[in-house]
Amino acid sequence: MPQLRKDIISGKWSVVAVNRSMRPESFTHAHLSKSARLISDCPFCRGHESQTPPELDAVRLDASRPNTPGWDIRVVPNKYPAFTMDEVDEDDDNLYQHQSALGLHEVIIHSPHHHLSLSTMQIDEVVKVIKMYKRRYLLALKNPQVKSAVIIVNHGRQAGASIEHSHAQLFAIPMIPNLLKRESDSFSAHYLKNGDCIFCDLIQHEISVNRRIVAENSHFIAFCPYASQTPFTTWIAPKSHLKAFEVADEEVLNSCASILQRVLISINKNLHDPPYNIWLHSRPKGKDEFHWHLEIAPKLAIPAGFELGTGMTINVVQPEEAAKYLKLF
Amino acid sequence: MPQLRKDIISGKWSVVAVNRSMRPESFTHAHLSKSARLISDCPFCRGHESQTPPELDAVRLDASRPNTPGWDIRVVPNKYPAFTMDEVDEDDDNLYQHQSALGLHEVIIHSPHHHLSLSTMQIDEVVKVIKMYKRRYLLALKNPQVKSAVIIVNHGRQAGASIEHSHAQLFAIPMIPNLLKRESDSFSAHYLKNGDCIFCDLIQHEISVNRRIVAENSHFIAFCPYASQTPFTTWIAPKSHLKAFEVADEEVLNSCASILQRVLISINKNLHDPPYNIWLHSRPKGKDEFHWHLEIAPKLAIPAGFELGTGMTINVVQPEEAAKYLKLF
Repeated sequence: MPQLRKDIISGKWSVVAVNRSMRPESFTHAHLSKSARLISDCPFCRGHESQTPPELDAVRLDASRPNTPGWDIRVVPNKYPAFTMDEVDEDDDNLYQHQSALGLHEVIIHSPHHHLSLSTMQIDEVVKVIKMYKRRYLLALKNPQVKSAVIIVNHGRQAGASIEHSHAQLFAIPMIPNLLKRESDSFSAHYLKNGDCIFCDLIQHEISVNRRIVAENSHFIAFCPYASQTPFTTWIAPKSHLKAFEVADEEVLNSCASILQRVLISINKNLHDPPYNIWLHSRPKGKDEFHWHLEIAPKLAIPAGFELGTGMTINVVQPEEAAKYLKLF
Repeated sequence: MPQLRKDIISGKWSVVAVNRSMRPESFTHAHLSKSARLISDCPFCRGHESQTPPELDAVRLDASRPNTPGWDIRVVPNKYPAFTMDEVDEDDDNLYQHQSALGLHEVIIHSPHHHLSLSTMQIDEVVKVIKMYKRRYLLALKNPQVKSAVIIVNHGRQAGASIEHSHAQLFAIPMIPNLLKRESDSFSAHYLKNGDCIFCDLIQHEISVNRRIVAENSHFIAFCPYASQTPFTTWIAPKSHLKAFEVADEEVLNSCASILQRVLISINKNLHDPPYNIWLHSRPKGKDEFHWHLEIAPKLAIPAGFELGTGMTINVVQPEEAAKYLKLF
């Protein structure tokens, strides 16, 4: 059972989720560059349904049964979950703050095809993926133990993907994590002071200065944020004030899929198919103000002692330069 | 001139420090695994003094002149500094908060020998290194622009070291970075409430439960913290209440060098010579309460979407298990 532990000095929370396939004696830095699995072993490929825990959800256009081939998108619990609904917090270390890591940890397999990813799938397939994100996100938030949820994509081994086959992960967790809380606090503070949305102001500013915009379509804007923490970081946000991802309508989801694919194609083309991470930030439960958005971070730098020791980052590419390159399509 | 930029949504600061050797068009994920330099090209080796900016400090036992061989430890400015004393903040983007990245960014070369590191040097050489850390740290804090300083070591390419030759970096910066501020706030809050030091309490607790201790000597204790963010993270702290590194006396510095080397030897032996990061946290300027310490993080996991999107971490090895392994010496 994973456990949430709070560092009483830094206030940071860590999920201790022991992966039984990784014993301490097997730990070597080889883990950093573990070799890609053979496709024949890939648990996310069509025909390998028995290699995952039983499926939670799927898009199946034929009449195929759960846990058999025939799916377009498949959702399964993570085999080594960081959050589960089993409550057993047996730790008796009385100085420290801890709690069961209650929640959900799901894997959303984007496609039955091993070599497709969000940038190479058909656009209608990407739309289906985004709709599945919404369905699982909405369901996760209905769980009374869940206070917030994030959906993330790790693409490429160097971005932390242990399985190459394209997939997302949904983490539904019993607290509002630090980064989401800080964002949420910014929204609230700005709203109290100005009566409007800080992200809407930011988008208006980006459109008017037009120095960091990467792409724009009917409902969305993509831009390299002013204080990008890593080279070529790109945010995608709805241009209208939409607080929560889980209530986005079909037209918005279509538009989101389209700009997401466009940005990923540009990143692949201009940066030579790098590994990348994506995360979705939306309004945490119980909060009033937010403006949902996606953050995409190509993995081009290694966070080192400065980043780990300060929480600040050094970015060696100006966001204005980054946007110029990513605009080339 | 590097620039500090604040993200108005997350509140995070980023240093935009453009490295002229890395043009955007040359950016590929190959940067993540750039090949080691040839020793013959290493700017930190004895005899290559002209390949660094002019030296700021050195330990020279003979009468050799600056920027010539004959040194045991050498301090030079970073060639691509993240912080400098040149104040030119010409950005006119009026929505955002920014300032010149005023400060210092120094490189402390541990030894003239390319293949020695803190775990393989003679102990008296490590003592000299720690003393040099103190001297540079003390000097940096005297600069009126500097509000805090951290010393870090990146060991190994996968831990972000762009140069293999063993060295540390001192960052002296014009603010108290987020992580240091949160620690400092914990110290202050605990002192206000209990009249004592939260870190002293933590050390007493660790000694009494004796489940996470890795090593102990006359003045120091090394342990795997309860909420370790990554596998085998180890903290080294003075057992007595010492707020600030820069006032540590000779006996304490000797003891520090000794336990640091012991922990690094254990990490190398038990985890098969992994890359690692070290950072030193000490009392920021103007703060009353703190307890200085070193944090050592072997680089065995890649921060991925969950870590980047939440600020939390998933640790797949229990700190209690980690300590058991690192105790084997």
